[in-house]
Amino acid sequence: MIIDCHGHYTTAPKALEEWRNKQIAGIQDPSAMPKASELKISDDDIRETIVNNQLRLMKERGNDLTLFSPRASFMAHHIGDFEVSSTWAAICNELCFRVSKLFPEHFVPVAMLPQSPGVDPKTCIPELVKCVEQYGCVGINLNPDPSGGHWTSPPLTDKLWYPIYEKMVEYDIPAMIHVSTSCNACFHTTGAHYLNADTTAFMQCVQGDLFKDFPQLRFLIPHGGGAVPYHWGRFRGLAQEMKKPLLDTHVMNNIFFDTCVYHQPGIDLLNTVIPVKNVLFASEMIGAVRGIDPTTGHYYDDTKRYIDASKILSAEDKQAVFEGNTRRVFPRLDALLKKQGR
Amino acid sequence: MIIDCHGHYTTAPKALEEWRNKQIAGIQDPSAMPKASELKISDDDIRETIVNNQLRLMKERGNDLTLFSPRASFMAHHIGDFEVSSTWAAICNELCFRVSKLFPEHFVPVAMLPQSPGVDPKTCIPELVKCVEQYGCVGINLNPDPSGGHWTSPPLTDKLWYPIYEKMVEYDIPAMIHVSTSCNACFHTTGAHYLNADTTAFMQCVQGDLFKDFPQLRFLIPHGGGAVPYHWGRFRGLAQEMKKPLLDTHVMNNIFFDTCVYHQPGIDLLNTVIPVKNVLFASEMIGAVRGIDPTTGHYYDDTKRYIDASKILSAEDKQAVFEGNTRRVFPRLDALLKKQGR
Repeated sequence: MIIDCHGHYTTAPKALEEWRNKQIAGIQDPSAMPKASELKISDDDIRETIVNNQLRLMKERGNDLTLFSPRASFMAHHIGDFEVSSTWAAICNELCFRVSKLFPEHFVPVAMLPQSPGVDPKTCIPELVKCVEQYGCVGINLNPDPSGGHWTSPPLTDKLWYPIYEKMVEYDIPAMIHVSTSCNACFHTTGAHYLNADTTAFMQCVQGDLFKDFPQLRFLIPHGGGAVPYHWGRFRGLAQEMKKPLLDTHVMNNIFFDTCVYHQPGIDLLNTVIPVKNVLFASEMIGAVRGIDPTTGHYYDDTKRYIDASKILSAEDKQAVFEGNTRRVFPRLDALLKKQGR
Repeated sequence: MIIDCHGHYTTAPKALEEWRNKQIAGIQDPSAMPKASELKISDDDIRETIVNNQLRLMKERGNDLTLFSPRASFMAHHIGDFEVSSTWAAICNELCFRVSKLFPEHFVPVAMLPQSPGVDPKTCIPELVKCVEQYGCVGINLNPDPSGGHWTSPPLTDKLWYPIYEKMVEYDIPAMIHVSTSCNACFHTTGAHYLNADTTAFMQCVQGDLFKDFPQLRFLIPHGGGAVPYHWGRFRGLAQEMKKPLLDTHVMNNIFFDTCVYHQPGIDLLNTVIPVKNVLFASEMIGAVRGIDPTTGHYYDDTKRYIDASKILSAEDKQAVFEGNTRRVFPRLDALLKKQGR
């Protein structure tokens, strides 16, 4: 079984974006603020956007199941206040839940949180609870920079974030550490901000001792861990300078990387330096890089091909990356699949 | 001949740091502001810090020559105003010049600029001119984020930076794009901010068309290009989405990466995906990662070993990485070496 642990609803019906634009207009002009109930998306609308896009490509590529969360760049936590984020997160999470009900064999939901810059992260807990308990979400996406490229929140090791971590441990769910759109002109969203956030989050964990406080906490760092595997020697050396334990015990019982690295040499590096148990298959399809690589004739983001072609991973390793690791890191997914007889 | 294109004077005499601390105190209390002339560092002081540190390691490792600039993390352009940065840059550049006069076979100077957040970069030109014309600097370090982790300057493709580029083209000198200390708690200086800046600068160039305006402009992106080689497929794919030319022609006639990647698999990846002509040998020694890698028994930052051990590079390729490329990217270095009969 092939599980893609990193998919977003990037193809949601146009009505969603139109509603969001009205909501953004409503921030300046409260009389124009739309109600959540004004958004009308039918099951057929949803089916159409999935069947012709993600599900079509999953079937072509041989991916069985995708962990599915709201579009990352549309989370845009920097827009408006907590109320705005809260309404928006509720709408987006409900849509992913509906996708999972319409295609229970192929999509399992992961929640976004109603984060807002300067607002205590614990305000996200009611949405988190609803998503886990009512929608069956098996994980969350946590944005380490709700300001969108200004990095005004404290590091992930700060106690401000602990209420979220307590709830994660209680539910035994991991968080993917995923930023949203950059509103800082220096950072291209998918070409700089995403990768920088991955590197930054990892280094915050190296600097701190978060996993002493939360030995069960699990972070999934997307996009192959940003710059981390490429600079694995640097990170090992920096931990050493800081008199931290070896990375294996200091952070690698708690941090996992996905395989959203869009070429064979990158995937091969990932699997050369990062233990197999820490690598989870993902493509972030349909996402930032939608084209066909002229050097291979295949989609850049068809990451299954790179894993299939790997000479570094054994058949058993590949099975762990495609399925076993993800079931271990997402125990609620594993429980659901077992219930489905899978 | 082995040329290390990325060295900083990280071992400068203690008196330098003491003077700087007085200068920082003087920002709040002008009566305490020290004069530049109060800093006393003798040639013997300099000799001692070099002979026992960089030069010793260079000889042990077989590196002949280092392009030597002021300590990157001490540039700290975010501290004080232009006047403060200007005095500080002048002092630091003069010290590197003195190192080069004392050890003309082993060190050639590269200048830092007196950048300051919110101050027009063209104010740096007098220092740049002095460093090239009087000190024989063969390149500059350009900080894309003088705010120190808040990223308040426009992208490097913005016309605000053009006066610096015009001078670089006039003198035919490259710039290493190198940030300084992070004063944003989210970003560890050497474990996140440096690498993020490398990735960010590259992506800014991909987004823009800077090298259409300056076909002769050359940027050296340190630390192996941040996350770029590891995500080479992503960057190729993003350029394709943006309808830019292939990276080879769009940016790779103008952008070069150093080899400050502190483990063999990272160096091998760099040399697998990045053309040999774009890779310049460097170690950033003595720098962020000073320890010995327990898995190899050698210094993490002894990057010459990784190049020597490379099975990807031919003998001719290694010669290009160690010497030829650097002489080509730094024509003033090449002219100097030829004058020295090297």
